[in-house]
Amino acid sequence: MQVQGVDYRTVTLVGHTVRMINQPLIPYRFELVDLPTHRHTAQAIRDMVVRGAGAIGAAAGYGMAQVALEAPEGAGFAAYVCEGAATLRATRPTAQDLFYAVARVQGAIDGAGSVPAARRAAVEAAQALADENAAAGEAIGRIGAERIPDGARVLTHCNAGWLAFVDWGSALAPIYCAARSGKRVSVYVDETRPRSQGARLTAWELEGEGIPHVVIADNAAGYLMQRGMVDLVIVGADRVAANGDIANKIGTYEKALCAADSGVPFYVAAPWSTVDPACPDGSRIPIEERDPDEVLLLTGLDPEGRPVSIQHAHAGARALNPAFDITPARLIQAIITERGIYAPGELPLGPLQT
Amino acid sequence: MQVQGVDYRTVTLVGHTVRMINQPLIPYRFELVDLPTHRHTAQAIRDMVVRGAGAIGAAAGYGMAQVALEAPEGAGFAAYVCEGAATLRATRPTAQDLFYAVARVQGAIDGAGSVPAARRAAVEAAQALADENAAAGEAIGRIGAERIPDGARVLTHCNAGWLAFVDWGSALAPIYCAARSGKRVSVYVDETRPRSQGARLTAWELEGEGIPHVVIADNAAGYLMQRGMVDLVIVGADRVAANGDIANKIGTYEKALCAADSGVPFYVAAPWSTVDPACPDGSRIPIEERDPDEVLLLTGLDPEGRPVSIQHAHAGARALNPAFDITPARLIQAIITERGIYAPGELPLGPLQT
Repeated sequence: MQVQGVDYRTVTLVGHTVRMINQPLIPYRFELVDLPTHRHTAQAIRDMVVRGAGAIGAAAGYGMAQVALEAPEGAGFAAYVCEGAATLRATRPTAQDLFYAVARVQGAIDGAGSVPAARRAAVEAAQALADENAAAGEAIGRIGAERIPDGARVLTHCNAGWLAFVDWGSALAPIYCAARSGKRVSVYVDETRPRSQGARLTAWELEGEGIPHVVIADNAAGYLMQRGMVDLVIVGADRVAANGDIANKIGTYEKALCAADSGVPFYVAAPWSTVDPACPDGSRIPIEERDPDEVLLLTGLDPEGRPVSIQHAHAGARALNPAFDITPARLIQAIITERGIYAPGELPLGPLQT
Repeated sequence: MQVQGVDYRTVTLVGHTVRMINQPLIPYRFELVDLPTHRHTAQAIRDMVVRGAGAIGAAAGYGMAQVALEAPEGAGFAAYVCEGAATLRATRPTAQDLFYAVARVQGAIDGAGSVPAARRAAVEAAQALADENAAAGEAIGRIGAERIPDGARVLTHCNAGWLAFVDWGSALAPIYCAARSGKRVSVYVDETRPRSQGARLTAWELEGEGIPHVVIADNAAGYLMQRGMVDLVIVGADRVAANGDIANKIGTYEKALCAADSGVPFYVAAPWSTVDPACPDGSRIPIEERDPDEVLLLTGLDPEGRPVSIQHAHAGARALNPAFDITPARLIQAIITERGIYAPGELPLGPLQT
């Protein structure tokens, strides 16, 4: 997508360097950050310099390419690759795209006949992953736009836009496609505490595309649906289990309950790389717990425009910070993928199950 | 309740002056503010220097006493009282206690035979209202504590503690009584965006009482219930309709849906003054919309301990900020009042209906 007239991807590989948009600075500042080694890339994933299922996957794929490029010739190569893969896999526990990307680039490395061939294969596989992710986003947008009627008021949670992918996004891609095709679309943006990805990232993306949007407290989503002010909900997913349960940003489950109670269609948009056919249902998806300070501190710009974290509970307060929750398949109208739109219990998993 | 060993009420009348705890400063600083006229009191209610259904009611009652004390002798008295009542009623649209208090003190004024008698009657009625509110909180605590088993993990939303009343509170009073009687109780505190009354006020109150508590993002409540980590939910109410629907802080409805989906009992605690027998159901309760900046700005202390508001969306972002929502009676296990515990559809309204 474009930022001030220039095309960007969320994450790219430039030589041996992973270059990504520094997402904690958005919407305050637009800056790229260069990560010279796979360890820097892993740290950036852990610190959420890059976040969002697809973008994490692409970054991890490029990180694996860095592993192959860095690994010593000869006997140490395989061990270095194995250790690098473990480092990347250990960064975030919930997003399926991460594991998918690491496994796929590792497979390309393992299948190569020599170290130089393995390096080439790793870079090619990582690049293919990123390109497929961008293409999946575009296809999800085209396919999902069918479900967005002219005049639709859409509610979304967190950020599953182009910043969460290599390009286009999942939940926001159908909105972009619908708007570009001339439909009038407006969006209620859950601010998405504790990290405010809705208020910070989704609102900024929609502003860039010129799509009308209103930020709301996460608590207000149910009220708006109750009042008939929302026509459909679209969210992303960090993992889709075989039975159609999904893991997504904490609070998604609450919004799905609201949608069900008010009869509002609740869609999940995700590329196929997010589907984990080995995971039978949502109860098997590990849920990441993050730093309690994400809840106890609020982050933004002070009146002079300086980034600052402020405290809103008493000194010494404790917090609990699960980063994801599970939305059961029964609350999901359909899952929008680049392969088509499926009822959550009818994902065509056959050829992928191993 | 006590703050550092000294007994306080949330709001009191000292001569002609309304004295209240300055709630936007909590937990950062404990300070009282003196309001010399009913116009200052009305502004303090509007600006949420005092907030919470019962505390708003008591403040409005004292504000009406100020009206009677300020009003000119003779022909202008009645008009001044009428105008003062209108000013106080116009401060906040949702809380029933506000209208109840203004009407009751106005009734005492109207029933007096002379201006001096009206002034005495107004002060007495306002004082009686505040005393009844404190006593109702204590009774709700005693009665509601029966529903809190030893070892209970309770989730609450917003602040319906003693800061929201004259004393004791509604949702927190049963927790205080249970804990003082020796039961082990712990509390999950929804931070309650956009104004963080949970993180700021409820956590501070619980800390003062030595009750273990953990602050969570509002988005996490559903997850905790889904995982079996919550034994019951107790919230307050700003208005209870005749059919048992309630208005309470925005997000209450979402938590009630979560409780229903996980089979967690969902209790509402409120004094009888919150019941509006003239309101048939929740759809008739006006919902206040507040300043969008409450959503777009986050308020707390900066690293140097100075109060600051910070921005977390892009400059020029728009927001929508409904302050309350309606939780339908079907999601409520029981309503805990000072008169007893009732199923929401079985409130004994008979003698009150006019």
